[in-house]
Amino acid sequence: VPRTEMTRLPEKGRPDRAQLDELLDSVAVAHVGLVADEHPLVVPTGLVRDGDRVLIHGSTGSRWMRTLAGGADACLTATSLDAVVVARSAFESSFRYRSAVLFGRFVRLDGAQKQEALDRVVDGLIPGRRDEVRGSTPREIAATLVLAMPIDRWSLRVSDGWPEDEDDDVDGPAWAGVVPIRTVYGVPVPAPDLRDGIDVPASVHALTSAEGDPHAS
Amino acid sequence: VPRTEMTRLPEKGRPDRAQLDELLDSVAVAHVGLVADEHPLVVPTGLVRDGDRVLIHGSTGSRWMRTLAGGADACLTATSLDAVVVARSAFESSFRYRSAVLFGRFVRLDGAQKQEALDRVVDGLIPGRRDEVRGSTPREIAATLVLAMPIDRWSLRVSDGWPEDEDDDVDGPAWAGVVPIRTVYGVPVPAPDLRDGIDVPASVHALTSAEGDPHAS
Repeated sequence: VPRTEMTRLPEKGRPDRAQLDELLDSVAVAHVGLVADEHPLVVPTGLVRDGDRVLIHGSTGSRWMRTLAGGADACLTATSLDAVVVARSAFESSFRYRSAVLFGRFVRLDGAQKQEALDRVVDGLIPGRRDEVRGSTPREIAATLVLAMPIDRWSLRVSDGWPEDEDDDVDGPAWAGVVPIRTVYGVPVPAPDLRDGIDVPASVHALTSAEGDPHAS
Repeated sequence: VPRTEMTRLPEKGRPDRAQLDELLDSVAVAHVGLVADEHPLVVPTGLVRDGDRVLIHGSTGSRWMRTLAGGADACLTATSLDAVVVARSAFESSFRYRSAVLFGRFVRLDGAQKQEALDRVVDGLIPGRRDEVRGSTPREIAATLVLAMPIDRWSLRVSDGWPEDEDDDVDGPAWAGVVPIRTVYGVPVPAPDLRDGIDVPASVHALTSAEGDPHAS
């Protein structure tokens, strides 16, 4: 059976902050957990790291974001699936993956802090795009919630090994290895209402040519 | 600001079971939320759908899986990030995505049910692999927890549109469109201890040639 459980195997725990940052910077979407009406709730959300904190944003109409803004206990998990580990038995088969779990509470950002964080969010999700479009209006900014959680209590699990088959299986006829998994950007598709003569901008070119660092997982 | 919040926008709610199944079948990893020691916890885990239930599995040593096996309230979220929506303003930029949220409790499977579910898990994660390797031993099966949650209470959010810029922006100079995001398998890499003369098997070939249906997100 593929060991896809990603449990807290001690050997996979690596308290390396640089590895944590690399993972947080490489995923576009994380999953945030909270307790809502006494039940666990897990929601996907765009993620951007800003130094020693993570930023998420959303509509002021979002109920779960308002719950977080109110100081609810939260867990943010960012996962990158890196390869299928094909062992010589089903049991030893698994995934290579990296997963970060951050615990804490979010705080709502306002005023100049909010504006700076929003800039950072745009820069993080589509680098370079901010210089190609108009600035956000006060109404747009007012309609957006921006929340920050310090990178303080966290754990990182990294599984990057090879199949660990028993000797009998290694001597047997079955193949073993890994199959890399990558997230790639495809060819940009213009919007149906795009006016003639507007070329694909530099920011989009940069996204699609950065396949080695796909910035999405 | 890119609307990456994936909030519960009414127009994105589509109670279509076929779409739900398609999403659950296309992701290899989901995120499970539970309340552990009164705090929310979100853990990535391999996911396989089996008819009207979802299956997860892991080590009997996994604490969060034992908590789930004990009947804890759970939330399972499966997300596929499908494209970057590049609008003519930062505010209207967002992602195309599909996200399913399932609520309920897991039950532990045992005996013949467990064996059947394990077979389904292997078939789901590496189709065809089960015929290429030995069967799992009683010890391996005993070391594995298999949990099932009925597909009963769920919601599905689908964002698959184009930039929705205001007229003034549509008349402006900025490009707009979408950049597709795909998850692809790379070239298989043999294990360092692979014996000579063992070719890449059919199951792995099938994985890597199924890029249109990447089975990982």
